[in-house]
Amino acid sequence: MSEPDVVYIGEKPVSTYVLYILERLKKGSRKILVKARGHNISKAAHVTEAVHRMSGGKTKYGDIRLYSEEVGEESEEKSVPAIEIEVISLL
Amino acid sequence: MSEPDVVYIGEKPVSTYVLYILERLKKGSRKILVKARGHNISKAAHVTEAVHRMSGGKTKYGDIRLYSEEVGEESEEKSVPAIEIEVISLL
Repeated sequence: MSEPDVVYIGEKPVSTYVLYILERLKKGSRKILVKARGHNISKAAHVTEAVHRMSGGKTKYGDIRLYSEEVGEESEEKSVPAIEIEVISLL
Repeated sequence: MSEPDVVYIGEKPVSTYVLYILERLKKGSRKILVKARGHNISKAAHVTEAVHRMSGGKTKYGDIRLYSEEVGEESEEKSVPAIEIEVISLL
């Protein structure tokens, strides 16, 4: 098994991530791990669903994992929800 | 198997959903299905992670499913990402 490509969903537009992932799939990537936290979790879902649609259904989901990450300074550490979505190529 | 409780995440504060779910678990609910779409997907993750933490780790995840729903009028139908998160009681 090769390591999956990892894509972190941040503040760029949805289309930027979608086009990047479609390009990776076209180049032969078998598995892409999409990671996001906080309010970007919704965007990650938006991205992976758009990739599925725009690839003509040529992706499926592997594991989808929810967890928490601690962020911030030690005295003001807070817990932020995070997601990891495995996108598997059917190409 | 009994049907799971279903909780739709909407515009109320995170704490409202967290307290409701903790109450359901305390009353013996074995499985709660948390559903959200669009920008509320992030809130759903926030809710289920907070429930896990505030229950003292007495929940685990079952299936987590991402999909799309069609919303709006026929002529302006658009696809919105959605999530279903199974929260299983360990109490």
